[in-house]
Amino acid sequence: MHRQQHPIHDFHIIESTLREGEQFQGAHFSTADKIEIAQALDAFGVEYLELSTPIASKQSEADLRTVAAMPRRFRVLTHIRARMEEAKLAVDCGVDGVDIYIGTSAYMRAYSHGKSLQEIIEVSREVVRYLKDHGIETRFSTEDTFRSNLADTFTVYRAMDLEGVHRVGVADTVGVADPMRTYSLISSLRQAVHCDIEFHGHNDSGCAIANALCALQAGATHIDTTVLGIGERNGITALGGLIARLYTMDPELVKKYDLPLLREIEELVASKVGIEVPFNTPITGRTAFHHKAGVHTNAVLQNPTSYEAINPLDFGIGRSIDLAHRLVGWNAVRDRAATLGLALSEADLRSATTQIKTLADAGRITLDDVDAVLRGMVTQEVG
Amino acid sequence: MHRQQHPIHDFHIIESTLREGEQFQGAHFSTADKIEIAQALDAFGVEYLELSTPIASKQSEADLRTVAAMPRRFRVLTHIRARMEEAKLAVDCGVDGVDIYIGTSAYMRAYSHGKSLQEIIEVSREVVRYLKDHGIETRFSTEDTFRSNLADTFTVYRAMDLEGVHRVGVADTVGVADPMRTYSLISSLRQAVHCDIEFHGHNDSGCAIANALCALQAGATHIDTTVLGIGERNGITALGGLIARLYTMDPELVKKYDLPLLREIEELVASKVGIEVPFNTPITGRTAFHHKAGVHTNAVLQNPTSYEAINPLDFGIGRSIDLAHRLVGWNAVRDRAATLGLALSEADLRSATTQIKTLADAGRITLDDVDAVLRGMVTQEVG
Repeated sequence: MHRQQHPIHDFHIIESTLREGEQFQGAHFSTADKIEIAQALDAFGVEYLELSTPIASKQSEADLRTVAAMPRRFRVLTHIRARMEEAKLAVDCGVDGVDIYIGTSAYMRAYSHGKSLQEIIEVSREVVRYLKDHGIETRFSTEDTFRSNLADTFTVYRAMDLEGVHRVGVADTVGVADPMRTYSLISSLRQAVHCDIEFHGHNDSGCAIANALCALQAGATHIDTTVLGIGERNGITALGGLIARLYTMDPELVKKYDLPLLREIEELVASKVGIEVPFNTPITGRTAFHHKAGVHTNAVLQNPTSYEAINPLDFGIGRSIDLAHRLVGWNAVRDRAATLGLALSEADLRSATTQIKTLADAGRITLDDVDAVLRGMVTQEVG
Repeated sequence: MHRQQHPIHDFHIIESTLREGEQFQGAHFSTADKIEIAQALDAFGVEYLELSTPIASKQSEADLRTVAAMPRRFRVLTHIRARMEEAKLAVDCGVDGVDIYIGTSAYMRAYSHGKSLQEIIEVSREVVRYLKDHGIETRFSTEDTFRSNLADTFTVYRAMDLEGVHRVGVADTVGVADPMRTYSLISSLRQAVHCDIEFHGHNDSGCAIANALCALQAGATHIDTTVLGIGERNGITALGGLIARLYTMDPELVKKYDLPLLREIEELVASKVGIEVPFNTPITGRTAFHHKAGVHTNAVLQNPTSYEAINPLDFGIGRSIDLAHRLVGWNAVRDRAATLGLALSEADLRSATTQIKTLADAGRITLDDVDAVLRGMVTQEVG
């Protein structure tokens, strides 16, 4: 299985906080919000920024024009249905690329647009031709790909590939995909089309980051992310989560981004949409480098990589060693005594550790309590 | 690849909120806390409950005895190093099973215990024999399995399998594993040992849920979870996340648990450790069934499964359709008008939709604003 994997070297992030992220419950971005978020993501170094369709509202259109006109390194995309009037407006707004989507599953065809397979191909072909004629980078994506008939879906993808789209998109719109299915589907698609492949994965069953990795391993070239994963329902692949996943395999894969900016970008977006950064967020969650159990702290004090897959310093983040609890080990207590400049014997350190555990059994304690126990040992010795 | 997958039918949850979860930054569980959490998880139906080693502190020992003695359906486990004094104390506390762990990676061997491969086997063998002689369900796990020499690790696993352990454990202690590696390693191990296989996966790179699934697909039988995934650093596979993942494949897989209890168990533990339930938590996150974009709400109003992989009602949770924003679609507006008992023409509904978008462009709006626009259309008609 490993032999078949694609080398991940040349992947691109399509940052969709201003499109998918706008579909998050708490997202109501003003023009100023959008510019601030776009500038932050430009500084971070994402390759693409996707904004909501300009037909959503007058302000959506105006904002798309504004972001397209700003000084920037990323390419500006918008996300439209396979409709000519949307494509024309998108082009007029000055975007670099357009992401077309249309539902291909039985669910989407029945409850969203009601089109047949042949109709899907025909309406999409017209839009793709128009966009290509106007020099626009064009992506064609099915919606709800993992609940679609694969023979049908691949027929549509091949038709769009022949039409010359730059990318086809695979979308796990409802979050049903798992890693093995993602790997399998994208591997097959890699054989079926010549163009680039984009993956968009929802997180309803907690696999959005893992599925994005498997998509890349199977030959996908572009991954959709949002900051903290915000989006419809519980969202999609998180920007920071994807970075963490790839960094863990090889830090060089993500050194093209300005990693120490990640935390402030997350805090910026979290404040705009009224959430806190989840405690379990890779890298930037407040406990991501918090070491507590005695076995862990002992090893981390000697060599942090013993219990850290990611070097927090690469992200401008520190680690913490927690001693004020009943799971504390005497090695960590010894280290603390040394930090305080206290010379204690092993017997004293073990006794201090027992005292700290007894205190912690009785209720919450702090580092001050730990230090008081250690200083008390010296007093006893002197006394 | 799919043909090789193990059917997932008989898996077991080892719920470790009172062990791994106690290693979370904010966790300081009192005896009463532990009993409350244990009772809630017993009602939910987890098969095993793992508690911290009794040598951690006097109260840890007393609490282990208390939980072992309480009326319960789950089997009680504790988690110990490969040391005879810990094993003896565990047995004396009345546990049903003991989870032994020892580091096998170069990192762990250098910075944690300093033992050679042969020493690891010898000390573990003594402990395993003692536990088996006392009728204890015995698991042997390596630590940091994914950064260990696999030939060495498999030598240890085979020796423990021959010794008659009930399970061997694979631990992604630092969160470096990815789905394909997890699948590959556990598939190989499935061929190498006869006993059950347990998987313990950290979430440092956001793949703990996906890796647990791949472990099951490769033949693992037991998965470690904690409520909301709390644990060292940013934690491990979340109980609810694993449930969501398996439910999405087949709801029957998880009907053995009392699913509507999930949300209150998460709220209980979140309150004990001082966190909020992350917005992106599968199923129970506050936006998990929140539908916003027009294309989505249109389809969901006709058939919720069009954009929902999980039926929230199976978890005692409702869904929400959000109209008060610029991405609203006219179908959802029509539905709202019908709910309000207002008979409006399509032209009026489209006009109302445009008015709602214009209002939302100017600032945050509420459902009251939407309703006011709709009622205003009637007044215009009457007028």
